[in-house]
Amino acid sequence: MRTVTAAQTRPTTRGERARARPREILAAARELFARKGFETARMDEVAAAVGVTKPAVYRYFPSKDRLIEALLEEDLAEPARAVVRWVDEHPGPISDMVAGFSERVEQLQSTGLTRRYLMLAMDEAGRRPEIAGFIRREVLAPGLVALARAFERAMTRGELAAGNDPLLMARLFYAPFLQTSLGAVGYALPMDDAVERGHYRAFHVAAFLRAFAP
Amino acid sequence: MRTVTAAQTRPTTRGERARARPREILAAARELFARKGFETARMDEVAAAVGVTKPAVYRYFPSKDRLIEALLEEDLAEPARAVVRWVDEHPGPISDMVAGFSERVEQLQSTGLTRRYLMLAMDEAGRRPEIAGFIRREVLAPGLVALARAFERAMTRGELAAGNDPLLMARLFYAPFLQTSLGAVGYALPMDDAVERGHYRAFHVAAFLRAFAP
Repeated sequence: MRTVTAAQTRPTTRGERARARPREILAAARELFARKGFETARMDEVAAAVGVTKPAVYRYFPSKDRLIEALLEEDLAEPARAVVRWVDEHPGPISDMVAGFSERVEQLQSTGLTRRYLMLAMDEAGRRPEIAGFIRREVLAPGLVALARAFERAMTRGELAAGNDPLLMARLFYAPFLQTSLGAVGYALPMDDAVERGHYRAFHVAAFLRAFAP
Repeated sequence: MRTVTAAQTRPTTRGERARARPREILAAARELFARKGFETARMDEVAAAVGVTKPAVYRYFPSKDRLIEALLEEDLAEPARAVVRWVDEHPGPISDMVAGFSERVEQLQSTGLTRRYLMLAMDEAGRRPEIAGFIRREVLAPGLVALARAFERAMTRGELAAGNDPLLMARLFYAPFLQTSLGAVGYALPMDDAVERGHYRAFHVAAFLRAFAP
């Protein structure tokens, strides 16, 4: 699945319309959920925005949860997989990888739509544990495992001190990024300013490299 | 205000009963909120549990928000202030302080009631930003500032490398603790096992001290 804008989803013939339907529904749901929240937005509002009946929406997405999951897939899981691929293919040195990872996470966290989803997911994680579960399974866990592999390769190349648990290193490296994404929902001390976040990330990356220098 | 158990709140005379009333209400609300959540639990259920009318509850706590705040004050803010005092009075060395801080946070995070409140606060932060605001103002901010002061003193004593921003150090030191408390609500990768958390905290404390060694 690919992210499409409303302008790209203007089919003309009857067959084209039917094929474009799931994308139209996703585009309308994205806009509606981002504006009203997962809980408040209703499936019939999605249907009305697309100009179809509610059963037509349910034909493609059998529940609101499945619709939310399809959106999270496009807007969070796909970009996260691109970061994981980049980490897996990074030849080193590790200092370049951690700095580049930091920039890529910032891109994810500062993009309006992703930032809104992170906030929504956090706000509604209590009522919708399947959202938290999806992010954990599709975004966080693959990211941590890719980082651990990268740290392990860097130990083998002698760029990091040998003998540390790479998964604990990955978790530790990731903690401040979680903290800055939480800032948006107000539970942690907020760090909404991108310059301030950049400063903090650079400070963190340097400290991490010092802590695990050979 | 002090935390009291139900057994301690059995007043006998009419005057004693009136004086004990706020404590009885808090004890009943604590039990009810922890069981049903801040959102679902109703003020008339609190009243029923104490055996008084709803207006009697409102006489002491003019809104549910004020009642929640009184509970968070006793169960989170007071213990947090004790940790802050301990940090402020710690003479060093800094390695002892960070290890001791880590143990104290673990005590807070693993205590059933506090852990339940952290989970509740996270679950309902989206709907009740005043809860997130209270925790930020009364728990997180004072803790970070106390840590920053301690790191600054340790730099002066020559126990940490000079020239680093103590507030950024405090934020960085705190990130993994936030991460382990979040684990409970399922948004971060869970770390519900106390032994696993202890292992992670020790790993983090050692890495932090290496990163900022003189």
